[in-house]
Amino acid sequence: MKHFISASQLSVEEIQELLQTAEQHRQHDVHIAKKVFAANLFFEPSTRTLMSFIIAQRKLGIEVLDFNPQSSSVQKGESLYDTAKTFESLGADLLIIRHSSDHWVDEFNSSISVPIINAGAGTLDHPTQCMIDLDTIYQEFGSFKGLNVVIVGDIRHSRVAHSDAVALQKLGANVYLSAAPGFEDPTLDLPYISIDEAVEMCDVVMLLRIQHERHNEYTDPMLNYHQCYGLTTERERRMKKDAIIMHPGPVNRNVEIASSLVECERSRIFKQMANGVHVRSAIMVTLLKEWGIIDENSIV
Amino acid sequence: MKHFISASQLSVEEIQELLQTAEQHRQHDVHIAKKVFAANLFFEPSTRTLMSFIIAQRKLGIEVLDFNPQSSSVQKGESLYDTAKTFESLGADLLIIRHSSDHWVDEFNSSISVPIINAGAGTLDHPTQCMIDLDTIYQEFGSFKGLNVVIVGDIRHSRVAHSDAVALQKLGANVYLSAAPGFEDPTLDLPYISIDEAVEMCDVVMLLRIQHERHNEYTDPMLNYHQCYGLTTERERRMKKDAIIMHPGPVNRNVEIASSLVECERSRIFKQMANGVHVRSAIMVTLLKEWGIIDENSIV
Amino acid sequence: MKHFISASQLSVEEIQELLQTAEQHRQHDVHIAKKVFAANLFFEPSTRTLMSFIIAQRKLGIEVLDFNPQSSSVQKGESLYDTAKTFESLGADLLIIRHSSDHWVDEFNSSISVPIINAGAGTLDHPTQCMIDLDTIYQEFGSFKGLNVVIVGDIRHSRVAHSDAVALQKLGANVYLSAAPGFEDPTLDLPYISIDEAVEMCDVVMLLRIQHERHNEYTDPMLNYHQCYGLTTERERRMKKDAIIMHPGPVNRNVEIASSLVECERSRIFKQMANGVHVRSAIMVTLLKEWGIIDENSIV
Repeated sequence: MKHFISASQLSVEEIQELLQTAEQHRQHDVHIAKKVFAANLFFEPSTRTLMSFIIAQRKLGIEVLDFNPQSSSVQKGESLYDTAKTFESLGADLLIIRHSSDHWVDEFNSSISVPIINAGAGTLDHPTQCMIDLDTIYQEFGSFKGLNVVIVGDIRHSRVAHSDAVALQKLGANVYLSAAPGFEDPTLDLPYISIDEAVEMCDVVMLLRIQHERHNEYTDPMLNYHQCYGLTTERERRMKKDAIIMHPGPVNRNVEIASSLVECERSRIFKQMANGVHVRSAIMVTLLKEWGIIDENSIV
Repeated sequence: MKHFISASQLSVEEIQELLQTAEQHRQHDVHIAKKVFAANLFFEPSTRTLMSFIIAQRKLGIEVLDFNPQSSSVQKGESLYDTAKTFESLGADLLIIRHSSDHWVDEFNSSISVPIINAGAGTLDHPTQCMIDLDTIYQEFGSFKGLNVVIVGDIRHSRVAHSDAVALQKLGANVYLSAAPGFEDPTLDLPYISIDEAVEMCDVVMLLRIQHERHNEYTDPMLNYHQCYGLTTERERRMKKDAIIMHPGPVNRNVEIASSLVECERSRIFKQMANGVHVRSAIMVTLLKEWGIIDENSIV
Repeated sequence: MKHFISASQLSVEEIQELLQTAEQHRQHDVHIAKKVFAANLFFEPSTRTLMSFIIAQRKLGIEVLDFNPQSSSVQKGESLYDTAKTFESLGADLLIIRHSSDHWVDEFNSSISVPIINAGAGTLDHPTQCMIDLDTIYQEFGSFKGLNVVIVGDIRHSRVAHSDAVALQKLGANVYLSAAPGFEDPTLDLPYISIDEAVEMCDVVMLLRIQHERHNEYTDPMLNYHQCYGLTTERERRMKKDAIIMHPGPVNRNVEIASSLVECERSRIFKQMANGVHVRSAIMVTLLKEWGIIDENSIV
């Protein structure tokens, strides 16, 4: 693992090791006894991803460099590459990057000599969220083989959908998609089912947010969207006994999911957030070790 | 004290204990020997309140989570409640919240299971600023009984006025109000006096900022406002021998107060800011103890 | 050194001492064993300057107070002076200030009783960047005497040009300027040469960024600017054997410098950034010592 860039690059073994490390970090706080600087370069808004990285970094004892594009030289036209190169020069040991471009990672691989974690690349990939979703499912079911998982919603604009679909298939789950007309993604070769079929046959109902900021569809008749394609309270009652509800957040209440279901017993939505801290902690420590920036002796 | 939400909920005993704790924190630095995370969720601009919370947190050894609504999922429509619930899930031990709504605190009481401190709710309540004002008066006079205190300015739009008026009355002070026409508040049953009466009879002249951002009144003829309703240098000369000037800041120089008086001998304006660090430190430690998040052994 | 305000106020001895201290901080990490608070008050965008201050502060163990004018009381009309005075009252031990005004430093000298470092004042002065440039040249050549240094670009709008020209002359370098028509500065009494003369005779070619945000000139025909006044790959080949390229960043690639030269062998552009951390560390420690805020015993 040179950089942590794409869910599709992870082998089954690497995923399993990360899940084990995440479990260890959940059980016991891990501390790095060495001054390590991480720069969080978020060019798009974030609460959960940014904050769980920051909390994981602080728990590990990593020094956090917060970067606000609005008050940076990005305002003078500086590119993402030059910004990243600047942080490398200033002494950052680890870069966490979120950017609206699908392909920013491509130009980075050779010329940046510190590890990079992709915290969201356009509509294409969100590998740390993918690992959180895998961790949450694994905690619940202990295995992925034969599990029926449906990803519901704005598939086409969702980087989470792309990352999760690839990884879950690799791990042996049966992955289905469910989308309103126009939200399907032609690049994913997976069966589509209706939300009504989905709730009755799936162990995991993974909802996605309607990405209003990436398109203008379905902004008006949202109540209609909820009735036709969302998880209503009526549909929740038809879910399998031990089936769970997931959502990477932020949630549009009463659009993709009924507001009362967000904190219902089946919901793992806030659990996913809690897991995010440990999973991101595991990813950072794994990467820092592989690069030789820290070793076993640095970890207490 | 479940949450620290409103000045009106504080008993005389609770106020006195907080003033004592603040005095202890002023005398000796207090350090929490445990990893505690505080999230500062400020949905409205702030320098003094935010920065004094941060400095108090850092002095205590608390890990600070800074949240910028402009670069968060609030931009994707996430509500205050869901934002707070997210921080709780991520592991925040304490939430400090400022929001423009008068009533955000109402929906929080039952469903958030970490302590919350109100750092400003609309025009209604600003209980930590209230405690700072009480602390500053107590440091000066050693008692509240029989003290004449006038609150001068934009009473109607000031959350400080509401909090302070209630608490000062409870402590036995004689509270007067002084306001330009239109700035009176019908919800407060207190005597109004002119600024000229105020300077001659009061021990504490507490000035408020004209809240330009909440209304459009008096934006033009400000010089006129200063002459008719503000603390001019001429009026300051008529103040009682040991009377003091207070203002929660930020100050509109030459509007509610002559610029030269901001740093004059009677002014406690910058003293209030310094006190803010210790008072907020005391409030946080008190709340963390009451919730069992820290105990006496965690404090060194 | 009461405050660190202007390159022109530094004596040759003070510059030499700072260069030595910077070298020590480059060789060995320095840590302040005392709680010191630094407030970074940046009213203009910055990546390099702000981040290198923050990294230097964190390496030293200084508590960093980040201030975002957009979410502060500056939005309610609070002035720079009142903001600085607020941070002093709250307990900041050191203020780092960047502001678009040329003359903000003038009003501060007497009334603020904590040390101030100028991190950029309008178009007039940028003394910490100047020290970084001196440090980078000194590392390369071991001396300034007789060195030919050309400053190329938007001289008139560059605070770096002003600071560097003054300091380099004082240290015995031969300073030349090279500017497109309209970018000359009448206040600097130094010889102008063409970029073609510059590359052939100079040991240091110091390029400046076209400050698009301060004027509207040359925004269109930038390719033409590059050919006529910029460092093209052709001109780089005519540079002296050991001559170096410098640029304070951010770089406009293919405007003042060919993109491929930014990371070429002669370029010290990213080296300057790395040096920035140590130089700013040296300046802060020197100032904190002179003010008695720390002493030799506080440094480990």
